Amino acid sequence: MALRSRGLAYVVGVGRSENTLAKAAELGAIDRGETDLSAGVQSADIVVLATPVAHIVQTLPQLTTLLQSRPHTVVTDVGSTKAAIVQAGEAALGERFVGSHPMAGSERAGVEFARPDLFSGATWAITPTKLTDGHAQQRVQTLAQSVGAKTMQLSPEEHDQTVAVTSHLPHVLAYALSAVGRDVSKTHPHLFDLAAGSWASGTRVAHSSPELWGQIALSNREALLNALQEFTVELAAVQTALAENDADALLQAFTRGHISGSDER
Amino acid sequence: MALRSRGLAYVVGVGRSENTLAKAAELGAIDRGETDLSAGVQSADIVVLATPVAHIVQTLPQLTTLLQSRPHTVVTDVGSTKAAIVQAGEAALGERFVGSHPMAGSERAGVEFARPDLFSGATWAITPTKLTDGHAQQRVQTLAQSVGAKTMQLSPEEHDQTVAVTSHLPHVLAYALSAVGRDVSKTHPHLFDLAAGSWASGTRVAHSSPELWGQIALSNREALLNALQEFTVELAAVQTALAENDADALLQAFTRGHISGSDER
Repeated sequence: MALRSRGLAYVVGVGRSENTLAKAAELGAIDRGETDLSAGVQSADIVVLATPVAHIVQTLPQLTTLLQSRPHTVVTDVGSTKAAIVQAGEAALGERFVGSHPMAGSERAGVEFARPDLFSGATWAITPTKLTDGHAQQRVQTLAQSVGAKTMQLSPEEHDQTVAVTSHLPHVLAYALSAVGRDVSKTHPHLFDLAAGSWASGTRVAHSSPELWGQIALSNREALLNALQEFTVELAAVQTALAENDADALLQAFTRGHISGSDER
Repeated sequence: MALRSRGLAYVVGVGRSENTLAKAAELGAIDRGETDLSAGVQSADIVVLATPVAHIVQTLPQLTTLLQSRPHTVVTDVGSTKAAIVQAGEAALGERFVGSHPMAGSERAGVEFARPDLFSGATWAITPTKLTDGHAQQRVQTLAQSVGAKTMQLSPEEHDQTVAVTSHLPHVLAYALSAVGRDVSKTHPHLFDLAAGSWASGTRVAHSSPELWGQIALSNREALLNALQEFTVELAAVQTALAENDADALLQAFTRGHISGSDER
C-alpha cells in the first residue's frame, strides 16, 4: 500500500486466501493477487517475504528453484528476528538475500489495518553479512527509504540482541501482566473496572497473536532469555526493597528506569 | 478545573508555591490560591486532598483542629492507595472522612497538564467503611459524578489489592523495563533506534515521578508483593518454555494473556 500509493511499483500479493487477496486489491494494497508462489514471483524484481518468521524460513528454500532463471531478483523479508532467517536466506539464495526489519506495525493483524504511511519516519533495519551483494543491499535500502523509512545497518546477531530488549521483552511482559490480571479477576471481580491508563499501556500488545509471537520468541530464544534474566534481576531489586520496606532502595530502582523530560525517546 | 469549567464550585487551591497557585488560577483550575492550609479550608464544604500518599497521611491530623468548628465539612482524598489513608483519615476526622480514588490522570505531573474533561467516563472508586457517614459518602459520590465519572464502591482493602495489579504492578514493570533498556544500551548503542511501539507502550509510565510511585508502592507493599509474586510465576513459565524450546508451553503462556477482540477492555 505504501509503494502503490506513491506509484513506485506494480505489486503482486501472494497469499493463501482468495478473499484476503480480493480485500487487499480493493483496499489498494496490491495490483494483483496470486495464491501460487511460483506465479507470484515469476516476474518479480524484488520479493518481500512478510509472513510469520517460521513460515519465512520454510518458504526460502522454494525460492531457490523459482528464481533460478531470474538472477537479478533481490529477496528480502520483514521478519522480527534476523539471524535464523538470514542463515536460511543465504543458504537458499546466496548473496542476493538481504534480511531487513521495519520497526513499524501494531498489535492489529490483517490487511484491513494496512496504512500507506505506516513506514513514514520509522526505522528500517537492514542486516547484511559479509556475503551480501552490495547492489542487492542498495535496492532494499532504496525500497525502505522510498516509503519514508530511515534505514540503519547492523548485523543479524546485533539486531536480534537489541530487539530482544526493545520488542520481544515488552511483548512477554504484556502477555504476563494480562494473564495475572485475568487470574486475579476471578477473586476480585471489579479488577477491570479499576484498570486505567497504565493497565492499557502495559497490556496493549497482548492483543497481538500468541502464535506469531510464540514463533518470534522461539526464533530468538537465547537473546530473549538473556533479556528476561536482566529483567528478573531488576524486578528482584524492587521485591527486596518492598519486602524490607526500604524506601531508598525502591527509589533507586525506580530512578534507574525513570525517563525524564530531558531524555525523552 | 473540572468543577470550575462546569460552574459547580468555588475552588480554593492550597499549595506550597505561590507560582504554582498563580499558574493554576491563570489556567482556570482554581478561583483562589492559599499557601496556608488553615486559610485554605476555613470556609470549605468539602476538602479534597490531592498530594502524594505519604503527605496525605501527614496532613490528615492537622485537619482535626482546623475543621473542628465546621462539623459538616466532608473530607476526601484522591490518593492511589486507600487502606493506610482511610485509617489515618478516620483517626483524624471520624465518619466524615471518605476515601476515594479517581482512575484518571497520566504520567505527567503539574497543573499545566490539568484538563477539565479528565474525569469524563473514568471510574472513581469510593472506599467507605462501617464508620463512614452516609451523607458524607453521598456528597463525595455527587462530586465525582458531577465531573463525569462513574462511581463504584468497594472496601479500602479490596481497592488496594485490585490496583496493586491494575496500576502499581504496571508501573513497576515499566520502570524495570526502562532500566534494562538503559543498561543494555551501554553495550548495544543502537538500542533506542530499534525501539518502536511496544517499547513506547511498555515504558510510558516510566515517565512518572519515582518519588511519587515509591511512596505509592510502599503504602501498598503487601498487595504489590503478592502481585509481583504472581507475575514472576507467570514470567518463569515463559522462561522455562524458552529454555526448553517448548513451543506448546510458550503458546499456552502467551494465550493465557492474549486479549482477543471479543474480550476488549
